[in-house]
Amino acid sequence: MIRHTVVFSLKHAAGSEAEAAFLRDALVLEAIPGVKKFERLRQVSPKADFAFGFSMEFADQAAYDGYNEHPVHTAFVADRWVPEVADFLEIDYAPL
Amino acid sequence: MIRHTVVFSLKHAAGSEAEAAFLRDALVLEAIPGVKKFERLRQVSPKADFAFGFSMEFADQAAYDGYNEHPVHTAFVADRWVPEVADFLEIDYAPL
Repeated sequence: MIRHTVVFSLKHAAGSEAEAAFLRDALVLEAIPGVKKFERLRQVSPKADFAFGFSMEFADQAAYDGYNEHPVHTAFVADRWVPEVADFLEIDYAPL
Repeated sequence: MIRHTVVFSLKHAAGSEAEAAFLRDALVLEAIPGVKKFERLRQVSPKADFAFGFSMEFADQAAYDGYNEHPVHTAFVADRWVPEVADFLEIDYAPL
């Protein structure tokens, strides 16, 4: 199991329609083959300067690679992520 | 639900007995009241400069506060975390 997480902040104003649209439209990622336990989350620690997070799990590296290369994912990155995300950090976990 | 995560690296050499001892001894945190779904994880993304992670969930802020203030937690932070951890970032999530 690989848990892929990304914590991020948007360029959009908090509570804006553009913010809501980004979070809503990100649901296209959930339907990509291999994606399990897809979650859209609010980052709530005052110690971290990020507002949101996505988390998903893959059975193995092959499933993760398939997600990364999937045209729905690459289109979301190019059309939405790059222009709308201000800052982010990817953190991936595997069992110890 | 609040998911408390901390991604970190240790001062110990990779694969060392000191590293193994830290990860083993951290299991004391799992027994603190209110802690659910405690996980010890390996951080595997080459894009993040951290080696490990802990993840746990709390039913609400009161349970999280109880954990933070619990003497087993404060002792672990003082006696093990502060001297043995080289770098860390806390990221907490709540449902969107």
